[in-house]
Amino acid sequence: MRDRKYAILGTGALGGFYGARLQKAGLDTHFLLKSDYQHVNEYGLFIESKEGDFTLTQVNAYHDVEKMPQCDVVVVALKTTQNYLLPKLLPPVVKENGVVLVLQNGLGIEEEVAQIVGNVTVIGGLCFLCSNKVGPGHIHHIDYGEIILGEYTSEYSPAGITENMQLLSDDFKSAGISIELTEDLLLGRWKKLVWNIPYNGLSVILNATTDKLMADQYTHRLIAQLMYEVVLGANSMGRNIPDSFVQKMLDYTLQMKPYRTSMKIDYDECRPLEIEAIFGNPLRKAQAAGADLPQISCVYHQLKFLDAQNQREG
Amino acid sequence: MRDRKYAILGTGALGGFYGARLQKAGLDTHFLLKSDYQHVNEYGLFIESKEGDFTLTQVNAYHDVEKMPQCDVVVVALKTTQNYLLPKLLPPVVKENGVVLVLQNGLGIEEEVAQIVGNVTVIGGLCFLCSNKVGPGHIHHIDYGEIILGEYTSEYSPAGITENMQLLSDDFKSAGISIELTEDLLLGRWKKLVWNIPYNGLSVILNATTDKLMADQYTHRLIAQLMYEVVLGANSMGRNIPDSFVQKMLDYTLQMKPYRTSMKIDYDECRPLEIEAIFGNPLRKAQAAGADLPQISCVYHQLKFLDAQNQREG
Repeated sequence: MRDRKYAILGTGALGGFYGARLQKAGLDTHFLLKSDYQHVNEYGLFIESKEGDFTLTQVNAYHDVEKMPQCDVVVVALKTTQNYLLPKLLPPVVKENGVVLVLQNGLGIEEEVAQIVGNVTVIGGLCFLCSNKVGPGHIHHIDYGEIILGEYTSEYSPAGITENMQLLSDDFKSAGISIELTEDLLLGRWKKLVWNIPYNGLSVILNATTDKLMADQYTHRLIAQLMYEVVLGANSMGRNIPDSFVQKMLDYTLQMKPYRTSMKIDYDECRPLEIEAIFGNPLRKAQAAGADLPQISCVYHQLKFLDAQNQREG
Repeated sequence: MRDRKYAILGTGALGGFYGARLQKAGLDTHFLLKSDYQHVNEYGLFIESKEGDFTLTQVNAYHDVEKMPQCDVVVVALKTTQNYLLPKLLPPVVKENGVVLVLQNGLGIEEEVAQIVGNVTVIGGLCFLCSNKVGPGHIHHIDYGEIILGEYTSEYSPAGITENMQLLSDDFKSAGISIELTEDLLLGRWKKLVWNIPYNGLSVILNATTDKLMADQYTHRLIAQLMYEVVLGANSMGRNIPDSFVQKMLDYTLQMKPYRTSMKIDYDECRPLEIEAIFGNPLRKAQAAGADLPQISCVYHQLKFLDAQNQREG
């Protein structure tokens, strides 16, 4: 079973890091690239990491998904703003009865993937990774890297711990990546939103790092209120997040070094923001379940405006 | 009765304009100034206006409220961020049985004034004035100028049209100012908030003029949602604002020339923002009456953060 073929769709800060680790561990890995294709095809990938730098001088690089082999595991590592490409990208590359592993933020993506490709297992992964792409084929892994894996089932009913999750876990662990398995992917995704919604949103809107947002009593309170609205959203879909988890996220962020969120980095670099995956989908899911999340809605509308202005000027 | 003495507390874009008009019309007017005192005492006031420029070479200028005569009408024309000064400023200058006319934005100020000075009539004025101070004693009146007057009574119960309102109206009309009288000051104040809350708030948070906020479908919708929350706030205090009024404000703003709100101008010039009068007081009033205004609360908390950052850096 060590001959599972991996495809990495999107060889950036995240896909490049995990894919390179998999190849280094001996897995047969195939990378889809866009702007960096020529460079990576010629020079390979360079991973700078506190866990040890390494170079892969030879990688299987592709510019065209049609030229890739069919793979057992297809890792979706694009920004969600590129997900409109998935109906074109996924079918050629994923094997019948293969696995699509969605390593993206936000809610509802596995559902979209399952509609695009039938006869596959869809697994979601929540990545706790701090990594940047600093040049073509050059990735700087700053910290963390753990992934929480959960299998998608129709309507996001809890899937338990499945064999496919175990197989993926073995591969990633062999590549030195910490893996946790969750029986309930949807609960995991909502829990991640408890952090992502307030900090990603307010960091862009208020042009601030996490420490500034936490040091001000008003934004501190607003962050807590937004977190409790996420809890309401989770409740509306039958998932319980205890108040202690909210408090843990607040305490954890207070202790973090000043941090510029990934959405703020995207904004500063004039890239489109992952607003629909992180804000729009949770809002629509909750609304469909009868829950009103007015402060998240306020932040969502503000972000949509800022993103449009930024794309126009950027 | 044409010998009513007027005191103007705060001789800026608003107080300077109305006060100069009153003096020009022959009323005995006394101006309290801070930074511009020396200049105005020496050179008077210059009003540049589309309705005709004029200079008052001689004005009764004061730097110290204790030196002012007791006046029949004291016009409060400070920014509300200066209202902590009122307990010191009002008692010396207002006559027993005199009138305090509050020409400020927001909610709840008349109540504060009534607690500071007893035995006076408190009248609120909603100003529709577009005016800037462009230099010491130099005011540029750009457009409009109408005032809606309403008398304050305990608990803001509707006062009807009172004699004092009529007298003020006569004086201001003699000075060429359009006056409308309202029987219900509280209703008038909430109606003004329908415009002030969304546009002042979002213009600062999103760094945008009114036309940009209206052209984007997301902020357009958020503005409407904020307006409907203002309507809920008014309802909580027993005041009805019809949906047609909300639509009228939206249509009116769509037709306006690109406009930078007064709060945005304050922000850009690093002056403290009138957040408590325009957002904090309405939120607290509504909450005390059992109404939750979550999107206004979100905007309020964001503004408090931005104002604090701005004052720190400014």
